[in-house]
Amino acid sequence: VAKRLEKFKTTIFTQMSMLAIKHGAINLGQGFPNFDGPDFVKEAAIQAIKDGKNQYARGYGVPDFNNAIAARFKKDTGLVIDPEKEVTVTSGCTEAIAATMLGLINPGDEVILFAPFYDSYEATLSMAGAKVKCITLRPPDFSVPIDELKSTISKNTRAILINTPHNPTGKMFTREELNTIASLCIENDVLVFTDEVYDKLAFEMDHISMASLPGMYERTVTMNSLGKTFSLTGWKIGWAIAPPHLTWGVRQAHSFLTFATSTPMQYAATAALQAPDSYFAELKRDYMVKKAILVQGLKDVGFKVFPSSGTYFVVVDHTPFGLENDIAFCEYLIKEVGVVAIPTSVFYLNPEDGKNLVRFTFCKDEETLRSAVERMKEKL
Amino acid sequence: VAKRLEKFKTTIFTQMSMLAIKHGAINLGQGFPNFDGPDFVKEAAIQAIKDGKNQYARGYGVPDFNNAIAARFKKDTGLVIDPEKEVTVTSGCTEAIAATMLGLINPGDEVILFAPFYDSYEATLSMAGAKVKCITLRPPDFSVPIDELKSTISKNTRAILINTPHNPTGKMFTREELNTIASLCIENDVLVFTDEVYDKLAFEMDHISMASLPGMYERTVTMNSLGKTFSLTGWKIGWAIAPPHLTWGVRQAHSFLTFATSTPMQYAATAALQAPDSYFAELKRDYMVKKAILVQGLKDVGFKVFPSSGTYFVVVDHTPFGLENDIAFCEYLIKEVGVVAIPTSVFYLNPEDGKNLVRFTFCKDEETLRSAVERMKEKL
Ligand SMILES: CSCCC(=O)C(=O)O
Ligand SMILES: CSCCC(=O)C(=O)O
Repeated sequence: VAKRLEKFKTTIFTQMSMLAIKHGAINLGQGFPNFDGPDFVKEAAIQAIKDGKNQYARGYGVPDFNNAIAARFKKDTGLVIDPEKEVTVTSGCTEAIAATMLGLINPGDEVILFAPFYDSYEATLSMAGAKVKCITLRPPDFSVPIDELKSTISKNTRAILINTPHNPTGKMFTREELNTIASLCIENDVLVFTDEVYDKLAFEMDHISMASLPGMYERTVTMNSLGKTFSLTGWKIGWAIAPPHLTWGVRQAHSFLTFATSTPMQYAATAALQAPDSYFAELKRDYMVKKAILVQGLKDVGFKVFPSSGTYFVVVDHTPFGLENDIAFCEYLIKEVGVVAIPTSVFYLNPEDGKNLVRFTFCKDEETLRSAVERMKEKL
Repeated sequence: VAKRLEKFKTTIFTQMSMLAIKHGAINLGQGFPNFDGPDFVKEAAIQAIKDGKNQYARGYGVPDFNNAIAARFKKDTGLVIDPEKEVTVTSGCTEAIAATMLGLINPGDEVILFAPFYDSYEATLSMAGAKVKCITLRPPDFSVPIDELKSTISKNTRAILINTPHNPTGKMFTREELNTIASLCIENDVLVFTDEVYDKLAFEMDHISMASLPGMYERTVTMNSLGKTFSLTGWKIGWAIAPPHLTWGVRQAHSFLTFATSTPMQYAATAALQAPDSYFAELKRDYMVKKAILVQGLKDVGFKVFPSSGTYFVVVDHTPFGLENDIAFCEYLIKEVGVVAIPTSVFYLNPEDGKNLVRFTFCKDEETLRSAVERMKEKL
């Protein structure tokens, strides 16, 4: 294996999902629904396949889908963008992240991450030869330590990566935090890469796109995907929105990472993004019910549950149960209780920082959530 | 744009396909069929979507598909491999190439390419920080200059990239050439990365997989895809086969480039790879007819046509028509004649080497091929 990837292990999501299958455990680990995506989107995929939309898409996306992404972005943020020059369709948000890092970051550039962070950020920065600077968000509210951020920004800082709503904590960056980060970025000529795949799962406050803040669009790459919003995580359709000069870098990397993204699925994704407001409202209502079930259940079991404002994840402190760290706790949970959670230490540069925390997902049907809670009540 | 991608332009395939649309030209440029893939594969995709196979696949592939890839590899090469440890499913062969380079090549490693070469090889090697060493295959037969190869291999050579059947020339590496390359690789401890996406389009001789030569499997990454063999270039399903120690590197890069590949399409691809022998025989027969039509047509038009043994491409010398180079010729062909071909100079480190050659594809229905020939007869 190349040196740039030596320090990384098999992603925790794969490890845990494989253990779930092996032990017949209820999987509240990796974030994929155990219910299906909406029929109108599946029907659109089937129609596209039947209609022979099966050859290479244009590298940066089929025109209809680029248009739909721009229209949705306008609806969500008020910003009018050029679908031809500012939208790049990718094979999931994971590819958008890789293309952004490899397309825009030079060796030696510093990029600031907030820990805990999704593992691909660090790995793709390593591929790009970047220097990762890490600021830890700490419970209970995971707020941004602004002074630390200020002192971390240097003349080598090229970008700050923001993920809101935030995986794994469920934190949503407040308008105040975003405004402060925005001024720092403008002042220091720093880019923002923002992963907003959970933007439609914002429960306690409205989602705010960094790109919508004054002066920020021109220095922001906004990444999103179909998977979470439409319960179709396996389709791997994502996109990056950025002004033309940044889009150029993203597209160049994308051209050589995957060249293009599944054509029929892009047509289906077009239909998805045109869903009526009621679709998004219902999705949110459903998830609020699921969240309430899981959060109450975890409290009843005896966890200290940290508030989650968005995403379909919730983080808890497992220390009341006396296991030495998050990994030991998750192992016990799988083997002795039959439930899978995700240890969070893998999301920190310094694993110690996450040793008390584990993440549960509530993107499962209510019965599954209830059974998991029952198992924990009985056996923990 | 990051420095690693500065020298690359919009891929020629995208440029030419966009010009084809703009000028209403017949597109014999980018290699995608203008006919549809087989119904049994499309049906399998539709069934998978209906069956709810719509959530994240296992990172390295859904088990059925990994098994089908291993079974197909055994059928094709006689080699028995472990689908769990030696197969990685990727989002097209393009991603397999990127994952191989980023997963196995370190900065400063030398990798040998044979020019003309598919543009993503050089770009992904640049992402990996490799030093590209290039050996030019020259018309009329594009045979491997063995002495030059010997003198190019150094103690820093990490890998040789082979593409057989070869895009753009249609050359197939002979058993003798492969044997010689194999001994050199074993002697100098060099890896082989082999792109075999056109393996089922081998007309004049049998395709030979480098991995099947004695002592080579353990040092070879074999890459392939669904697109060309099943006329479904837009589905973006590929894979890499390699011994476990190399697969580890490929998988690590893949995890962070795209994480996983479209789940329903992997089920469809499983059905595809299980196609009866008659499917592959018929595909080949159909393409031999198309090839005969185009080759004869190009000769009638007045081109010097170089023999193509495989792929769905053929390379010609355009100099009889008096344009100064391949790019000028292709521009004239689009604007004045209404036919798109691909200039080959972009496939060389030294563009001069390709200035007399352009590539046509015959992956189009017979009528389209005939119309293109008619246009050229009339207007060239
Ligand atoms: C690609 S799996 C990671 C994203 C996610 O769903 C998770 O965090 O569980
Ligand atoms: C991804 S387009 C390049 C592959 C191909 O089909 C071509 O060479 O035209």
